[in-house]
Amino acid sequence: MNDIQSQFVKKILNGAQTMPKEKGVAFAPSNIALCKYWGKRDAALNLPVNSSLSISLGDLGTRTEIRCIDVEQASLPAQGQAGMPAPQGIPDMVYLNGELQPVNSSFAKRISSFLDLFRPMFGNAHFEVRTENTIPTAAGLASSASGFAALVMALDDLAGWGLDKKRRSMLARLGSGSAARSIFDGFVQWNAGTNPAGTDSFAEKIDNEWPEFRIGILELSSAPKPVGSRDGMNRTVATSELYKSWPQQAAADLETIRATIDARDFALLGKTAERNALAMHATMLAAWPPLIYLQPETIEQIHKVQRVRAEGLEVYLTIDAGPNIKLLFLEENEAAVTTAFPGLQTIKPFG
Amino acid sequence: MNDIQSQFVKKILNGAQTMPKEKGVAFAPSNIALCKYWGKRDAALNLPVNSSLSISLGDLGTRTEIRCIDVEQASLPAQGQAGMPAPQGIPDMVYLNGELQPVNSSFAKRISSFLDLFRPMFGNAHFEVRTENTIPTAAGLASSASGFAALVMALDDLAGWGLDKKRRSMLARLGSGSAARSIFDGFVQWNAGTNPAGTDSFAEKIDNEWPEFRIGILELSSAPKPVGSRDGMNRTVATSELYKSWPQQAAADLETIRATIDARDFALLGKTAERNALAMHATMLAAWPPLIYLQPETIEQIHKVQRVRAEGLEVYLTIDAGPNIKLLFLEENEAAVTTAFPGLQTIKPFG
Repeated sequence: MNDIQSQFVKKILNGAQTMPKEKGVAFAPSNIALCKYWGKRDAALNLPVNSSLSISLGDLGTRTEIRCIDVEQASLPAQGQAGMPAPQGIPDMVYLNGELQPVNSSFAKRISSFLDLFRPMFGNAHFEVRTENTIPTAAGLASSASGFAALVMALDDLAGWGLDKKRRSMLARLGSGSAARSIFDGFVQWNAGTNPAGTDSFAEKIDNEWPEFRIGILELSSAPKPVGSRDGMNRTVATSELYKSWPQQAAADLETIRATIDARDFALLGKTAERNALAMHATMLAAWPPLIYLQPETIEQIHKVQRVRAEGLEVYLTIDAGPNIKLLFLEENEAAVTTAFPGLQTIKPFG
Repeated sequence: MNDIQSQFVKKILNGAQTMPKEKGVAFAPSNIALCKYWGKRDAALNLPVNSSLSISLGDLGTRTEIRCIDVEQASLPAQGQAGMPAPQGIPDMVYLNGELQPVNSSFAKRISSFLDLFRPMFGNAHFEVRTENTIPTAAGLASSASGFAALVMALDDLAGWGLDKKRRSMLARLGSGSAARSIFDGFVQWNAGTNPAGTDSFAEKIDNEWPEFRIGILELSSAPKPVGSRDGMNRTVATSELYKSWPQQAAADLETIRATIDARDFALLGKTAERNALAMHATMLAAWPPLIYLQPETIEQIHKVQRVRAEGLEVYLTIDAGPNIKLLFLEENEAAVTTAFPGLQTIKPFG
């Protein structure tokens, strides 16, 4: 799998000269999908079954600094060094929110294994990576999307490759599918593509701002997930009969949501995003063993959203592969939604 | 719709002589589906999209007595009276567990409207119906299945038609789809059939007893359902994209469960019944508006069943269109299951 990824990285970099600076720095926003990415058509290249559409969360995301820490190696000419074994003894130094992560932690291992794909371009150097999440950890927002997007952008800054956003998106995708979308601000569409080589599967910005758009985070549980979303996705695709109808639904939902952004039709956007999220969870409920990220508190709040909406408040929900709920509403209803859902953390995706 | 039903009833009775006795009496068991009935291909005739398979609950069910209360009318020759308007002023008298139900109650109206289909054979008589449920109401078990099955059998007893079980099953089906199965004890299969006239859609007994089979009722909520199962089914078929995969899943599940009964493969039976029930709820979760019979307590107990099973206890669940959970297990695990789930009400379907 790593060979396939390495070759993909080389193809995307396409012989770009690596001229390392002292450090590379980048920020990438977190994102919340309104039409979910659920299911891979290729595991090695993280190619999705369906296109997805998200909204980036402004200044909530990940800021990453990266520098080389094997100076002698890194000062060698970088090209043509691919395949040279990495030097022993000096692992990558991975910091998360200021704390050095143990080499064997799953966080450090995932970063290092992603960096392996780029190491040959830096004379097989090791790296010091300093990652700061500006998302409150308690909010239960996925940080892998913004994390891998920021890491790719920081690598690009460090190396001086000057990659366009399309290439950044495809590289970030290798780290975490939804990271392909975190390269952009605002509304973002990640096209699934059809090419088995993965060169047509990248995100693009939807050039349409909606300043009144609000997202509210309802943190319901910070318990660790029983199953990570990658494994959950694979289990669903492999065992859920109902998943067979998912690609059609996702395609239709994406088209609808895209049109509602142009038309400023919030009710239809909200409805479509909510049913898309619930359909994704439905495909999991029908998997075996059943995959249920929803907790009792989640069900309680889902019922509540239906109830307050029936009473006239225009609020919709979306749920990722976890127990927490994200509410979708407009500025004009912010006060009413905050009253109805105490403890809500409101985000303005357009600043 | 009533015309279609009336014609169906006449076709099934096929000119049988009505020779009313003083009263008709019958008992029919409640049943719990291991492969669910979910979706109609014909609303007037209650023809299902998919075949289903259930287990009847022994002596838990409905006992019904019926007699004619318009003596003059009822003593007329019954044949050829179809279409005569029912006499005014004397409504059916419908008792439930000893209490006379108001004429305008939904219970009495549903019974009377079903009796309308049979009234012409009794000289357009009205009826006194006394229905006793031996199912504790609190158990949250559907009583419409046993109720309509018992009512058809009591009518047959009253009239002296001598209908075979296949015909009884088809008539009970008109009152409530799952009533087609409550004509039989033990394991029962209701074949969906393909004939638009509905004459090949009836239940049959699976001639295989499994005395060690246990069902445990976990009553979690007695709150009235927000949506009845008939409306829920229709909403799901009309709006849930994922429902499109349901018929295939149900067909496969039924075949698997049928084979596990012959093979006494309880683990595969339980797994298949559980995933069938969860898939049914998944089709609802993907409907619009979302249809969620599951309550927070339901989710809690679903997680618990997964957990205790992972710890080695062979117990599975099924859930109908409501919040309560039915556990499936064998006699050998009865003590352990009862300990793990306090307040469980255990049923021995084979006595």
